[in-house]
Amino acid sequence: MIVSIAECRQYLNQEVTIRGWLVHKRSSGQVRFLIIRDGSGILQAILLKNKAQAEVFQSFDLLTQESSLVVTGILHADSRAPGGVELELSRLDLFQLTKDYPISPKEHGIGFLMEHRHLWLRSARQQAILWIRHELIRAIHDFLDGHHFIQLDAPLLTPAACEGTSTLFSTSYFDQGSAYLSQSGQLYMEAGAMAFGRVYCFGPTFRAEKSKTRRHLTEFWMVEPEIAFADLEELISWAEKLISFMIERVLAKRRPELQLLERDIAFLEKINPPFPRLSYSQAIDLLAQKGVSLPFGDDLGGDEETLIASQFDQPLVIHRYPSVCKAFYMKRDPEDSRLVLNMDILAPEGYGEIIGGSAREEDLEQLQERIKEHNLSEEDLRWYLDLRRFGTVPHGGFGLGLERVVAWVCGLKHVREAIPFPRTLYRLYP
Amino acid sequence: MIVSIAECRQYLNQEVTIRGWLVHKRSSGQVRFLIIRDGSGILQAILLKNKAQAEVFQSFDLLTQESSLVVTGILHADSRAPGGVELELSRLDLFQLTKDYPISPKEHGIGFLMEHRHLWLRSARQQAILWIRHELIRAIHDFLDGHHFIQLDAPLLTPAACEGTSTLFSTSYFDQGSAYLSQSGQLYMEAGAMAFGRVYCFGPTFRAEKSKTRRHLTEFWMVEPEIAFADLEELISWAEKLISFMIERVLAKRRPELQLLERDIAFLEKINPPFPRLSYSQAIDLLAQKGVSLPFGDDLGGDEETLIASQFDQPLVIHRYPSVCKAFYMKRDPEDSRLVLNMDILAPEGYGEIIGGSAREEDLEQLQERIKEHNLSEEDLRWYLDLRRFGTVPHGGFGLGLERVVAWVCGLKHVREAIPFPRTLYRLYP
Repeated sequence: MIVSIAECRQYLNQEVTIRGWLVHKRSSGQVRFLIIRDGSGILQAILLKNKAQAEVFQSFDLLTQESSLVVTGILHADSRAPGGVELELSRLDLFQLTKDYPISPKEHGIGFLMEHRHLWLRSARQQAILWIRHELIRAIHDFLDGHHFIQLDAPLLTPAACEGTSTLFSTSYFDQGSAYLSQSGQLYMEAGAMAFGRVYCFGPTFRAEKSKTRRHLTEFWMVEPEIAFADLEELISWAEKLISFMIERVLAKRRPELQLLERDIAFLEKINPPFPRLSYSQAIDLLAQKGVSLPFGDDLGGDEETLIASQFDQPLVIHRYPSVCKAFYMKRDPEDSRLVLNMDILAPEGYGEIIGGSAREEDLEQLQERIKEHNLSEEDLRWYLDLRRFGTVPHGGFGLGLERVVAWVCGLKHVREAIPFPRTLYRLYP
Repeated sequence: MIVSIAECRQYLNQEVTIRGWLVHKRSSGQVRFLIIRDGSGILQAILLKNKAQAEVFQSFDLLTQESSLVVTGILHADSRAPGGVELELSRLDLFQLTKDYPISPKEHGIGFLMEHRHLWLRSARQQAILWIRHELIRAIHDFLDGHHFIQLDAPLLTPAACEGTSTLFSTSYFDQGSAYLSQSGQLYMEAGAMAFGRVYCFGPTFRAEKSKTRRHLTEFWMVEPEIAFADLEELISWAEKLISFMIERVLAKRRPELQLLERDIAFLEKINPPFPRLSYSQAIDLLAQKGVSLPFGDDLGGDEETLIASQFDQPLVIHRYPSVCKAFYMKRDPEDSRLVLNMDILAPEGYGEIIGGSAREEDLEQLQERIKEHNLSEEDLRWYLDLRRFGTVPHGGFGLGLERVVAWVCGLKHVREAIPFPRTLYRLYP
């Protein structure tokens, strides 16, 4: 019977057939060990000189890393084997004897590994990262669906570059001129929130920025919930609950993967809302205490974020930034019109901003004024302004960058390993 | 206490506050009825002349469709009201009195409605369609996750136009020349299947085709599972199970929405695998019987598909097409080398192809030969060929077009209503 490695525990003392790839092999006296993977798990198979047919026993010597094969044998419980099961091999057939597999167990440079990303995915470490990514994606859908949010996919081809074209990829769109690849589905989600109350989009977004930092990709996944009637306080609460839910889920279901990555789980186990908060002004003061002077009105950069966040062991909420460094749609703070009602959440341990959100300006005239101040085109935002003409209500939302969270949860130095096929300034292949 | 309309049944005989939008209003003697939506549901509120304050009672006359408001009152059970609950209104506050809402209850042309898609989403019919879409998306994730598939997101920015540039959107990518918007994540999923066994991607894909049919969008969502060691028979079985699971889920959870759409549920209730099958040759014969002559080697067009599918009340599997009309990566049928081991699944009732898939050619030399025959560049497919060099195994997969399935399940004549913000040859706005 053909079974997957994950199912092996159900077939103890029975003969099964497994299809997979050789991870590595070793000899010890009269025993030969094969470590086999099939995508569902890792299995140890053994060949015993005094029991296996001579032909099968000898074929061991030929086997190479990443050869694809079919093995048949009896499954035995063995607490020393990975997964607690060992296969005593009686038959071995090859799909392909692999020659010169480029990724050996020795160290390779990151450029080489990225050039071979299509093969590098087979390594245990990359698999652990991507299973954790999978679990985080599931957790996001489960959390939002559980709270009656509708997934409302935003379009990626958009008609106008309403925040300037400098960081947008563009393409020719039939007779309609240029289309731009979306940086955010937010404006569409605002239309959705006026219809469905609680909505989110979750898909790829694009930034044509010439950034080479370890936190930037040109194509990355973002989830963007938008909520009718929510104020800043409620938005922070939703964000706290979502992050906590995601971390709990990974701790509950992906401990083996975290262990394989040698992630210090203690950092994740202590995540517990409500998170500490600083206003932008308090953040500036904290920076000043640390010897960094940031003039009021300047946005926090990556270095400042890291310095501030390092003072806390929880995600940190920073709220009410100066309006001059923020987007046109953010609602002004009624208590200080120089500020907007926004919030960023910084991951602990220096992993940077993982969430950015705000209350949105719901008043038509205020919004029109902001559009002028930002030198944007009212014509391009025609449909968006309709949302303030026809039944406007207070609302807000936020975006969570998936790869940033994966990098934090997995303890990765660079986001490029947090996505199956990363796209950066210098990398469009494979 | 502020509650959502969906929660109202929990607060019978209590005073609650609801925030939402006026759908419509009517008068009957001494009673005024307001139908209010908040995204979570529809609530009937009543004003009684002899009980409400005169000021509140009079404000009813001012109210317009899509005005945003806050209402407070006592909830009563009432089987005649939508949701079985009615609010006896004691207080009414406006966020905004909406003027000249463009979409009135009267009929509008499709061009007008699409131009106002950001508002049209508020209509009950569009909401029902998009909740069914949401449920279908959830069902896809639940089914695949439940069978240990990993979600492995394929990149949308891709380096080479390996199936020709004529139907691809392109963009300039820094110093790397052009990048192309992906038509399919399949090749990447094949790399994934060699690493994880069972993988899928689920995201937007793009076709720059100048098609104006009711089945085509330039941006649409596709789920693409890819499975190591699977043969054509297993692929058909996975596809049958996935479709059945999706239909069952919608029937279990979205009956009110199907009813609102006046969908004849009997068609969906009888979906039950295994589905009927025709080989391509049998399909040609069937067409001939119906008076349509299709030369061997020609692909089935939309009209042929509709004619064939109309003979069945189940989804129809058509398999083993001529290789000349199919993609280079499809595996040849060992029993007839003119054919490939592929399958399409056509929805019943004339909704067209919803799934296309195949076994993939796993042999390096065969694949190189196909690449030459199709005038493709081996250099562009360098990394893809690595998958046949290093531990190749039999495998296959398929793609399911989400909007086609939504259109079928909802009984829509055109796929443009099956996605929140459709993109077609003539539409890039809003």
